[in-house]
Amino acid sequence: MLDEVRVVAFDVFGTAVDWHTGITTEVGEVFAHREVDLDPAAFADSWRERYLPSMARVNDGEREWAYLDALHRESLDALLTEHGVADVVDEADRVRLVRAWHRLPAWPDSEQLLTRLRRRYTVVALSNGGFGLLVELAKTAGLPFDAIVSAELARSYKPAAGPYLTTARLLDVAPHEVLLVAAHGWDLDGARAAGLRTAFLERPAEKGPHREADRAADTTCDLAATSAADLATRLGC
Amino acid sequence: MLDEVRVVAFDVFGTAVDWHTGITTEVGEVFAHREVDLDPAAFADSWRERYLPSMARVNDGEREWAYLDALHRESLDALLTEHGVADVVDEADRVRLVRAWHRLPAWPDSEQLLTRLRRRYTVVALSNGGFGLLVELAKTAGLPFDAIVSAELARSYKPAAGPYLTTARLLDVAPHEVLLVAAHGWDLDGARAAGLRTAFLERPAEKGPHREADRAADTTCDLAATSAADLATRLGC
Repeated sequence: MLDEVRVVAFDVFGTAVDWHTGITTEVGEVFAHREVDLDPAAFADSWRERYLPSMARVNDGEREWAYLDALHRESLDALLTEHGVADVVDEADRVRLVRAWHRLPAWPDSEQLLTRLRRRYTVVALSNGGFGLLVELAKTAGLPFDAIVSAELARSYKPAAGPYLTTARLLDVAPHEVLLVAAHGWDLDGARAAGLRTAFLERPAEKGPHREADRAADTTCDLAATSAADLATRLGC
Repeated sequence: MLDEVRVVAFDVFGTAVDWHTGITTEVGEVFAHREVDLDPAAFADSWRERYLPSMARVNDGEREWAYLDALHRESLDALLTEHGVADVVDEADRVRLVRAWHRLPAWPDSEQLLTRLRRRYTVVALSNGGFGLLVELAKTAGLPFDAIVSAELARSYKPAAGPYLTTARLLDVAPHEVLLVAAHGWDLDGARAAGLRTAFLERPAEKGPHREADRAADTTCDLAATSAADLATRLGC
């Protein structure tokens, strides 16, 4: 079933980079500086929880296309207000925190995994982050993608079909010749519905220490890998 | 004037890769196999000469958006007919020759130049080649761009403003924060008209041994470099 795959579309937040550690660290620095008495990790969790709902409003047509940075900023503003700290976290802090999603640490094995996969496949980033965000993120995290593909190019967000089909179209292949690699069941579900092949890559720490990451046993996919090395080996790389 | 540059948009055909050698070689192999008595280098020249006029018809609205591969195929078909060899160069040969533009040799100094420029700038490919073509070309030629930007994303061709402004928009910078590097005056003229900064990189062999490449003396630009090393040094890399 995976013999026809020519392009690997690799998810980014959680799959290639450790957003939880990166965002928790930056939130923690801002909170310490502003003497905000909130748990940075729990705040990062709450911020990320608003990620899918904010994009769903774009996909459902409730609102016009908006960049992920704008959605992140709206969620951040609302959360700060809800926690009663809107007055102490200023404009510069907020800009910094939204920009923190542009500079996140790679998982220790991501670079090697991408390098192995690139021997056999064309390997592109496919993320709901904006194009510029992803270029900066890949560069600073040292992720050697063959190309960057962003939901911005489709003007719709995963799990809508647009980003998956745009990837196939831009790479000039059929949808079933694209394999999505992701650590999230919702992303694999969207890819499969669009006709792509799907590989689950388990990232147990993806949601931090307090929440359970998605697990292979709960995921429908063509290939479920428990580690980066397992994925590369099973894809013949 | 170049202090504000954050993104280098690097032209590909002729500037990063040696299209003349690559195409001449592939044309020569097809002609030898089919016993066609035509000079491959002159044929490559004639094919390339139809490049700008074919794209101008798209930019002028004379025809709908068409991929570079489709334009290359039309030019090739017409040339083969004009030379009276349409019957001996078959469909598979033609597909092969159009695909030859996806696999061209890099200039010997391109990889090192891009690596140096990437230390200080975000460096993207910006070409009239299709997105998939450019991804394949960069991968096979070993060109380490931070990202691929194609005229396809603007659905217009350089030297129209679309591709230049799309590059700035996708990278989330102002046009004057983008520096186009190219070996062709027409490309620099288009970039300058769109508000970009411009650097000419002399590639004396770009049009093969029989035709004169563009020269710095004939070019209007913010920076004219006589070699890859000269360009990198003068950009502080």
